[in-house]
Amino acid sequence: MDNNLLSNYLDTRQTTEKLCEPLQIEDYIPQAVDFASPPKWHLAHVTWFFEEMILKQYLANYQVFGEEYGFLFNSYYQTIGERALRSQRGFITRPTVGDVYQYRQHVDKHMAELLSGSISKELTDLVVLGINHEQQHQELLLTDLKYVLSLNPTCPVYKNDANLVADENTQSGWLKIEQGMYDIGHQGEGFCFDNECAAHKVHIEEFEISKNLITNADFIQFIEEGAYQNFKFWLDDGWTWVQDNALDKPLYWQRQEGEWFYYTLAGLKPINPEAILSHISYYEANAFANWRGMRLPTEFEWEVAAPQFDWGQRWEWTASAYQPYPSFSISAGAVGEYNGKFMVNQMVLRGGSRATAQGHSRVSYRNFFQPFMQWQYSGLRLVK
Amino acid sequence: MDNNLLSNYLDTRQTTEKLCEPLQIEDYIPQAVDFASPPKWHLAHVTWFFEEMILKQYLANYQVFGEEYGFLFNSYYQTIGERALRSQRGFITRPTVGDVYQYRQHVDKHMAELLSGSISKELTDLVVLGINHEQQHQELLLTDLKYVLSLNPTCPVYKNDANLVADENTQSGWLKIEQGMYDIGHQGEGFCFDNECAAHKVHIEEFEISKNLITNADFIQFIEEGAYQNFKFWLDDGWTWVQDNALDKPLYWQRQEGEWFYYTLAGLKPINPEAILSHISYYEANAFANWRGMRLPTEFEWEVAAPQFDWGQRWEWTASAYQPYPSFSISAGAVGEYNGKFMVNQMVLRGGSRATAQGHSRVSYRNFFQPFMQWQYSGLRLVK
Amino acid sequence: MDNNLLSNYLDTRQTTEKLCEPLQIEDYIPQAVDFASPPKWHLAHVTWFFEEMILKQYLANYQVFGEEYGFLFNSYYQTIGERALRSQRGFITRPTVGDVYQYRQHVDKHMAELLSGSISKELTDLVVLGINHEQQHQELLLTDLKYVLSLNPTCPVYKNDANLVADENTQSGWLKIEQGMYDIGHQGEGFCFDNECAAHKVHIEEFEISKNLITNADFIQFIEEGAYQNFKFWLDDGWTWVQDNALDKPLYWQRQEGEWFYYTLAGLKPINPEAILSHISYYEANAFANWRGMRLPTEFEWEVAAPQFDWGQRWEWTASAYQPYPSFSISAGAVGEYNGKFMVNQMVLRGGSRATAQGHSRVSYRNFFQPFMQWQYSGLRLVK
Amino acid sequence: MDNNLLSNYLDTRQTTEKLCEPLQIEDYIPQAVDFASPPKWHLAHVTWFFEEMILKQYLANYQVFGEEYGFLFNSYYQTIGERALRSQRGFITRPTVGDVYQYRQHVDKHMAELLSGSISKELTDLVVLGINHEQQHQELLLTDLKYVLSLNPTCPVYKNDANLVADENTQSGWLKIEQGMYDIGHQGEGFCFDNECAAHKVHIEEFEISKNLITNADFIQFIEEGAYQNFKFWLDDGWTWVQDNALDKPLYWQRQEGEWFYYTLAGLKPINPEAILSHISYYEANAFANWRGMRLPTEFEWEVAAPQFDWGQRWEWTASAYQPYPSFSISAGAVGEYNGKFMVNQMVLRGGSRATAQGHSRVSYRNFFQPFMQWQYSGLRLVK
Repeated sequence: MDNNLLSNYLDTRQTTEKLCEPLQIEDYIPQAVDFASPPKWHLAHVTWFFEEMILKQYLANYQVFGEEYGFLFNSYYQTIGERALRSQRGFITRPTVGDVYQYRQHVDKHMAELLSGSISKELTDLVVLGINHEQQHQELLLTDLKYVLSLNPTCPVYKNDANLVADENTQSGWLKIEQGMYDIGHQGEGFCFDNECAAHKVHIEEFEISKNLITNADFIQFIEEGAYQNFKFWLDDGWTWVQDNALDKPLYWQRQEGEWFYYTLAGLKPINPEAILSHISYYEANAFANWRGMRLPTEFEWEVAAPQFDWGQRWEWTASAYQPYPSFSISAGAVGEYNGKFMVNQMVLRGGSRATAQGHSRVSYRNFFQPFMQWQYSGLRLVK
Repeated sequence: MDNNLLSNYLDTRQTTEKLCEPLQIEDYIPQAVDFASPPKWHLAHVTWFFEEMILKQYLANYQVFGEEYGFLFNSYYQTIGERALRSQRGFITRPTVGDVYQYRQHVDKHMAELLSGSISKELTDLVVLGINHEQQHQELLLTDLKYVLSLNPTCPVYKNDANLVADENTQSGWLKIEQGMYDIGHQGEGFCFDNECAAHKVHIEEFEISKNLITNADFIQFIEEGAYQNFKFWLDDGWTWVQDNALDKPLYWQRQEGEWFYYTLAGLKPINPEAILSHISYYEANAFANWRGMRLPTEFEWEVAAPQFDWGQRWEWTASAYQPYPSFSISAGAVGEYNGKFMVNQMVLRGGSRATAQGHSRVSYRNFFQPFMQWQYSGLRLVK
Repeated sequence: MDNNLLSNYLDTRQTTEKLCEPLQIEDYIPQAVDFASPPKWHLAHVTWFFEEMILKQYLANYQVFGEEYGFLFNSYYQTIGERALRSQRGFITRPTVGDVYQYRQHVDKHMAELLSGSISKELTDLVVLGINHEQQHQELLLTDLKYVLSLNPTCPVYKNDANLVADENTQSGWLKIEQGMYDIGHQGEGFCFDNECAAHKVHIEEFEISKNLITNADFIQFIEEGAYQNFKFWLDDGWTWVQDNALDKPLYWQRQEGEWFYYTLAGLKPINPEAILSHISYYEANAFANWRGMRLPTEFEWEVAAPQFDWGQRWEWTASAYQPYPSFSISAGAVGEYNGKFMVNQMVLRGGSRATAQGHSRVSYRNFFQPFMQWQYSGLRLVK
Repeated sequence: MDNNLLSNYLDTRQTTEKLCEPLQIEDYIPQAVDFASPPKWHLAHVTWFFEEMILKQYLANYQVFGEEYGFLFNSYYQTIGERALRSQRGFITRPTVGDVYQYRQHVDKHMAELLSGSISKELTDLVVLGINHEQQHQELLLTDLKYVLSLNPTCPVYKNDANLVADENTQSGWLKIEQGMYDIGHQGEGFCFDNECAAHKVHIEEFEISKNLITNADFIQFIEEGAYQNFKFWLDDGWTWVQDNALDKPLYWQRQEGEWFYYTLAGLKPINPEAILSHISYYEANAFANWRGMRLPTEFEWEVAAPQFDWGQRWEWTASAYQPYPSFSISAGAVGEYNGKFMVNQMVLRGGSRATAQGHSRVSYRNFFQPFMQWQYSGLRLVK
């Protein structure tokens, strides 16, 4: 099992670096908006997590790679010293990209040393948490990168085979779930995050859920019937958001001479109408459902139904606000800042996307974002 | 029953005007912030509701009092024509206050005429809705008035007996509720709003809830132990709110030479430590509960337990985001804009306050505000 | 001369109150933007000036009318205690309008008492300054009132004969001024403000200046030829201002079915093409001159030429930044805050308008506003 | 003369690249604020100027290096097509830094070809303008770089010998200038910008001007006597600026355990009290002069006196708003956007700094910035 842990660790670390292979040094630097960090920061931050949470505690005589790294690459962990301002990550040109790769090697070498010895349950849990944390940042690295590249009027290509929104539905039709009491939350042995852990019972009424996700063609119809201009489909906050930002289409979409295109990590592409919709906010998902006279599933309905359909093509907005499960409590220390403190003003997404690390998600997994966020590979599924 | 309806209508109308008796004409005008409307606007808006939703539909040959009133005193009802900008209500000096009182008389006279005839169920429902709507605005009139008067450095007195935050707890101790399946939502014959109507079953785990609300003395301890300066008690959004606004006490509180005072509708008063805390945001309520190592009740826990304790001194923040009940659907037309479109980014409050109209609230009543709002008579009760 | 001073004082005070005769109490209250104060504030502030600068210093045993008035109705005089926030003048409902009129009577009574005795030169100078100060606020009272009334969708009428922008040019043609050394600044005995006092010599090159002001017809041509959409006529800051505010016409103008209207103090009126243009910013004045291939006069050119043409229909934007005259120095004490501290980021206007008090302006008078301000009765005259 | 022009051109181009030698690729990318551009952008923009204004017009069959470069590296020249948003220069990661150096070589090669033939007066003038333009950007490159590096908590070193604020005064005492009529503006044969060209006469009163610039020790006294907290020394806009930004020291200064340090391009250094003050705004310069009971020179006084003292250590704030000289007119075409459109809301600086290119400035040179700008090497000299 030890060997397994080390090899999982190393696989994850390699996967991250593999994602960066197509990048020029210039691409590692900018932060286009507060919520989207530079690739260099992601590379260093996930490494800092292993150094701070594991090596400094568990490896005798461990010397940190650089005194200032803890300060520069901490994220929201307020427990651990002052942190560099979140909105200024793009201005930190030194350490260089090369330095950060050396930082990774330094930490990997010592992690290999640590994981070659005997490993306590507590340490194993922390390493697995670190691996899952790095996997989350792999997806953010791609979505953040897409965001900043999209601002370049020349529509740069990250990788020619990296169009992550080209896939189509594999199933169709409706699935009926009977009313009853269902078990919700992670069950069994494997890893889970603290926000999904507390298994508990929920009473659910009968509902029918679609086996397929909404497609670009579906959404083009929504646009063309003027739904972005009709307040009655929108939540009040959503309508304000549409008006303030003068929105009339999903993120990355543009219309040129009557044809729809979108920016993808493979460059600017014509939209495939049959492909699954992506890059919509909760407000747009909710408005679409209203326009169809249906609704989004709650996260509990989704969790109960998901084993009976294919999922994992998009992060699917649910109708559920992100709130603690009944017996949830925040862990002590910095690890406790992972999830609990975000449980207000956010909506739950379930599923996973083409950008999610292999094996990272599961049926009980609770992703969450603010309702106006569009930069993830987010889509929707209807309930009636 | 008809007579009853008319007399309820007239009672409600008189109560509103009675609340305005201590006002000078000047007090009717300003709007201090977007969310707090001038008294003149409240007086006219509730009247417009009866004119627009009832008289224009049900009273033959009804002539509106003034063509522009519909435009000026509509609120968020986007279904009915363009509306005057919400943030500019304080700049509309004409019609005058006198004009608005004439508008009220005109509508009352015609409502009396209408309600003297035979009344359909549909019409009764609309009138009852209008009465409840006006009662809600009675409370807003007071809380909005308090907000604007508080900005005057001279701390004006609205009425000497209008200190609505001076009351103390009448009960103490903890109440234990067993786990089980409970009925939630309005049951029985009386009026309820659409957001509380769909009765349904919810499974609840065992919990203990306090019979008393948190007092000023409790909260002074929270302040004096530095909780406003310690991120670990706060939700991430709450911490940002505290920092951005440099907050270290509830709304209306001030410290003078080591003593605590607060602005009340009876003027500036020394704080009574035994009185029940008021004017806190959800962020503050949640941080207080964390600091105590406890939590807020969910709205379902509150609804199940409330029949066993005194409630109605404060609007109590719950741990529940404001979301639709399982079979909730938005009504057709303008009435449908009442509740449903606010179901995101808001938290549920249960109970009622000293400023709530007599008989207006009930155990299934769902009030809701954004988590940063403090200007209501809001408090909190703990669960362990 | 003493009697003269008192009668001038009383005339000015009466004129101010006469301007308020058409107002309802409601109109006295709102402040629509930071730069436009409520009528009640103007009435009280000019009174406070006499109380603070004169009665408290010169009238033995004078009792202030109310302790809080100094705090509430101070404007930018930072020397004298803390002042109420400039942006919150519209929220101060008490003292009432009636209280403020009593405050005026109280001060007038004591001023009459003071001015019935022997009067020093120093006191005379302060009273004359106070009179001129109140005259400035008479004009601001009207322009601020127009601004807030214009936000009411019903376009209220202040007074039927108060259309202050209906007047036409009385002269035409060009006036040539020879190059040479000219005396600039106030000369002679009468009152002047500190910013115009230091007479000095300026060398001026030959120029020709128009005897007429630009008309609405002229400006309609500017609009219709697309000048608001063409960056090349605009200063860089002006172009940003046009774009950020999506501007394409002067303040108060609107187009209805192809016809031009504007809001005036006499209500909404069709635009008279022959009337003199008003309510433009420096940016618009400068762009218009560029569009015509000409320029604005400097304030020195204007001062030299003005005795040879009719002036006083509009405040005329000049090409001169507001800066101190060579030997200008700021007076000691609060009076010194009158002008000097505004000498950056503002442009000089010369002339006067239909809203300026009779006899208030003169050929050396230097008015000044930020270049984006439009709410004064401002126009322009060309130089070639 | 032709050879001279080419060699001047090549010298300037090499100087720019020499300034970039200490940079890592990472340093070329970020834009910390709208007004400070990335080094990569400066390198490309000055090159684009030669391509757009010269090669495309004068070199037959010239092929642009890349179609998108004109769009990406245009600055404020609105005449030439749409431009990339000024605030997004830091997000344009491609073309890479390497690409931009190739762009420079491409343009240099063709410029060498063009300048080897016969050269018209018109072409010479444009090349000289381009050289002066690139020299201006050399200084901006350094000041912009300093700004972004200063945001890194690790205080990176650009070059160990690049402390450009360490120099001391070489002269002292006061210089008296008699009143009289003086010639102002560029005279003689050499290059000058359009804003300084129109020589003209100005009448000046007698004044005395200091031969030395204000030092750090002088300014520490200003700070320690509380001048940042005393409104009476400040212009009204300056006081707002100080309060809104909570300022109490010049840009780049910090206090650690009672000692003053500042960030320089050679890293964080203790402040030398005898060194000349730098990085202050006009508001600070003006407040300092008021605090000393003196004033800043006008730009005309400075120009008349400067031949009699050493200048060129700092850009010196003058008391003069940036306005056109009497017969100034804007040139046709894009070159005309160079200066004229900025003539509002800016103040003139005279002199030059350690970061100014050798031989770039002269006694008639008019630099200009908004009064709140601190990131240039700006200082002040007093007049009494």
